Amino acid sequence: MSVNEKKYAIGVDYGTNSVRALVVDLADGRELGTAVSNYPTGDLGIILDRAQPTLARQSPRDYVDCFMIAVREAVEQAKNDNPRFDPKDVAGIGIDTTGSTPIPVDSDGVPLAFQEKFKDVPAANAWLWKDHTSIEEAEAITKRVHELGNGYLDKCGGIYSSEWYWAKIWHCLRENPEVFEAAYSWIELADFIPAYITGNMKPETLARGICPAGHKAMWDADHGGLPSADFLASLEPKLTKYLGRYAKETKAADQLAGYLTADVAAKTGLVEGTPVAVGAFDCHMGAVGAGVAAGTLVRIVGTSACDITTLPLDADLRAIPGLCGVVPGSVLPGAYGIEAGQSAVGDIYRWFERSLAPVQYTAGGNTLYDLEQDAAKLLPGESGLVALDWNNGNRCILVDQALTGAIIGTTLSTTAAETYRALIEGTAYGARAIIERMEEYGVKINEIVICGGIAEKSPTIMQIFADVWNRPLKISRSAQTCALGASLFGAVAGGAFANVDEAQRRTVAYKSTVYEPQSEAVAVYEKLYRIYKTLHDAFGVQGTRSELYPIMKELIAIRDSVRESRRI
Amino acid sequence: MSVNEKKYAIGVDYGTNSVRALVVDLADGRELGTAVSNYPTGDLGIILDRAQPTLARQSPRDYVDCFMIAVREAVEQAKNDNPRFDPKDVAGIGIDTTGSTPIPVDSDGVPLAFQEKFKDVPAANAWLWKDHTSIEEAEAITKRVHELGNGYLDKCGGIYSSEWYWAKIWHCLRENPEVFEAAYSWIELADFIPAYITGNMKPETLARGICPAGHKAMWDADHGGLPSADFLASLEPKLTKYLGRYAKETKAADQLAGYLTADVAAKTGLVEGTPVAVGAFDCHMGAVGAGVAAGTLVRIVGTSACDITTLPLDADLRAIPGLCGVVPGSVLPGAYGIEAGQSAVGDIYRWFERSLAPVQYTAGGNTLYDLEQDAAKLLPGESGLVALDWNNGNRCILVDQALTGAIIGTTLSTTAAETYRALIEGTAYGARAIIERMEEYGVKINEIVICGGIAEKSPTIMQIFADVWNRPLKISRSAQTCALGASLFGAVAGGAFANVDEAQRRTVAYKSTVYEPQSEAVAVYEKLYRIYKTLHDAFGVQGTRSELYPIMKELIAIRDSVRESRRI
Repeated sequence: MSVNEKKYAIGVDYGTNSVRALVVDLADGRELGTAVSNYPTGDLGIILDRAQPTLARQSPRDYVDCFMIAVREAVEQAKNDNPRFDPKDVAGIGIDTTGSTPIPVDSDGVPLAFQEKFKDVPAANAWLWKDHTSIEEAEAITKRVHELGNGYLDKCGGIYSSEWYWAKIWHCLRENPEVFEAAYSWIELADFIPAYITGNMKPETLARGICPAGHKAMWDADHGGLPSADFLASLEPKLTKYLGRYAKETKAADQLAGYLTADVAAKTGLVEGTPVAVGAFDCHMGAVGAGVAAGTLVRIVGTSACDITTLPLDADLRAIPGLCGVVPGSVLPGAYGIEAGQSAVGDIYRWFERSLAPVQYTAGGNTLYDLEQDAAKLLPGESGLVALDWNNGNRCILVDQALTGAIIGTTLSTTAAETYRALIEGTAYGARAIIERMEEYGVKINEIVICGGIAEKSPTIMQIFADVWNRPLKISRSAQTCALGASLFGAVAGGAFANVDEAQRRTVAYKSTVYEPQSEAVAVYEKLYRIYKTLHDAFGVQGTRSELYPIMKELIAIRDSVRESRRI
Repeated sequence: MSVNEKKYAIGVDYGTNSVRALVVDLADGRELGTAVSNYPTGDLGIILDRAQPTLARQSPRDYVDCFMIAVREAVEQAKNDNPRFDPKDVAGIGIDTTGSTPIPVDSDGVPLAFQEKFKDVPAANAWLWKDHTSIEEAEAITKRVHELGNGYLDKCGGIYSSEWYWAKIWHCLRENPEVFEAAYSWIELADFIPAYITGNMKPETLARGICPAGHKAMWDADHGGLPSADFLASLEPKLTKYLGRYAKETKAADQLAGYLTADVAAKTGLVEGTPVAVGAFDCHMGAVGAGVAAGTLVRIVGTSACDITTLPLDADLRAIPGLCGVVPGSVLPGAYGIEAGQSAVGDIYRWFERSLAPVQYTAGGNTLYDLEQDAAKLLPGESGLVALDWNNGNRCILVDQALTGAIIGTTLSTTAAETYRALIEGTAYGARAIIERMEEYGVKINEIVICGGIAEKSPTIMQIFADVWNRPLKISRSAQTCALGASLFGAVAGGAFANVDEAQRRTVAYKSTVYEPQSEAVAVYEKLYRIYKTLHDAFGVQGTRSELYPIMKELIAIRDSVRESRRI
């Protein structure tokens, strides 16, 4: 320990359906205790509306209650399994969350949903990242920025997303004006949890993280912080009320948000006054927990996927169209944080499993594993299929929720395993489009680190990824890189390490298996990716008029030649 | 009975997997006896080759053996159930078969596969209609015809198919030169059965039907019969040997092929000397059994679909690109027989059932029915999906086997029932492209008659067809219209009716249910069909460069508006 004698840190990771707490030993990054608490409200923690299939909200009360449960259980486990563990040795707590997940609050920063009258009103709850009700507002924001040429979107890919802060707030005015009126401010979940557990909840003064502010709220020091009043008024005058109700400065996640309150300490078994770091998004902290650095792309693959890399602040970095954001300090202090992602990855696999996998795969209760076993027997190109991975729209590089999935090349002998493999490949092609876009703009990617449960459970998927991307893949040692990364920020904010660099050096590790691209597979996937990209542009890029007639013939030719190669 | 006192006829229908025999009462067309015999060889009667997935052959021995079994059983049933039935009152026997299904034979017309040395050689067996090994040869034939401008393909849609006679014979030279050398001639299954059961098997003299000759072998009285020696030699000189080994004239199916031999009579329980009509393709005779006429399109829907209509010989009929054929006398004597079709319809439904239907549909053993029940609950457009129906290539109007299926518009909530419905709709759109092509060229379609098991079992599919085609659908009373139609030709050839017109008037009937197009569904399908047609041309028509970007948006807009309409 370089700065003090604190030996542990706690990371708390807010996922889409649950929150996980992790107690980390700072000597080597190993996990002493972990616990998960599922959000009890709605469908797997999500408030849905059958009439509005794009609506996805969550209960802020769940966030608070599940924090207490998960942290308490993780601390108890650490105590039980490690007699030397003492909560007073916890250097700090770090928080990562989904995002953009803004919560409407009153003037004290208390969620409107805590009030009885708003409890069951969807608009008064948290607007989960994957809520896509704000497509029109996002389009209007993008259009206005481009009309004005104010550069507000240069650092977030040129297109504002319906998943993001201002689009959601604006949509609230249309969906439920009463909630909009009652909302004194909107707080990102990543800011809300540190605020709540430190008691620093006033909208004007609570610590607003650079990560949610810069990536989702168009906050940019270069234009003086939040978007200008003129700009917001040109969208909707009522939006301007929120401007004065936001911290003047934003903070990186290695900074302190405050200290744990007595109340929360009592409920979790921690010590009052434990330092709490500024929050950030799950994938940003996960990337840190997985060793993100310039040249290293960290992909956190779960229901969706998040790509994070960094570039030194002195790099000649232009705006990168179609990425989620390029924000100084949002991942590592002192570097550009570069973020991209896919709206669905594991969600597509699970969709197939639930909706279209036949009985031979579902009977054993081990569907995805069994499907993967059969998919593993196939060679690249053997199915003759190519899939577009847009079942939940396209976050990058098209930034268009109004896109859908497609499967091209089916025959009367197309199997479920072939289709499943094509869907996996589709998600790999989608990721490759992101990697290529980064490199086009000078962000070189030498190696890729995968985190998330899928990285451990699905070697076939990992090999497909390595072959499609034509780059070696490493797997994070921790299955909980987001929570691990969060704990590191807690540790740095609490003074256990001098900086995040040192924290990474001390704690980040990889599994021994590295997936190397296989040259034969790479060659086939090169052809298939070109086909994917032609379809990608044809369906996804306005104004494209490409000839698609050769595509089915090429898929057949690739298929037949791969099958022929099997016979030889 | 107008001509003689014969009261019955027998129709024998050679399908893809089995042969069916039908004993028909000519007083009203009702069925007195029926029996099916499954071809025992190969996979459901088809000889396959895992290394060549497009290969599909059948045993000529099966054809002969199954004839005896099916006819004998049908005759016995007719006797048992109808004490007055007497085989001597059978006016004639008609035969319909799949096609083009050519069989290599020796100089006596005996199939090479009857020889021990050729028995298990795929090339020496029958080349089933759906064998697609001859894609290259078919393309070369099309190319040469267009280079020479000889008009040989004007009456069969302008594109020679890999399913057809000369492409298959030519491919045999490449696949197995020994078989090609040994083959003295090639006889279509539709000609072979009448030849075999009448003992008139010599290749030079056996009755060659106008239907297989005109639709598949480029036989045309206007150019003197078969293609010229010069033309065949320009493809492959060795093909010319077959020219002198073919009847000088072809015959319509209301003509006599000969009389039943004593041997076959003994094996089937029929009377020696019973008249046997010239053979024709299943769909042609099926169309007659379903009341085909000018303005009436008969669709025989099974694993694939065949469309038949007619036009008076004095009509101003141009060549119709993309149809299978326009042949005088091939369906009804005295009219153009117009044929089109889809390479897969029921096969697509069954593919989905076998490969992708999840357990809730397969557990009950009633998969297609259960899927259809759930698909029936959906409104047109509600799924947001559109499918291309090319899982087995496209027979019409693109005549391109090197096309594959596609499903566009999937989301994370796309269900199996939605997908299944989209596949049904895809086959309906494919048929609509055929209907529109016919009408473009002056073949007006006022009503559509559907035959085949699906017409009786699947009211939802029938309603979708009616809505997509925006025309009333009638259902043939007989579930066995092909065999029924064949029996009518047997009856006419045997003199029981003066002509086919009279035979139809006396025997053809419909079910009382008529499916009328529903205006709301028609309006939605009008939009969806335009989307289908854009995709159809983009993937299927060389040189097309259309903008596909709006398609996913339009599908979403249609879906959302239909879902909205449900709420109101």
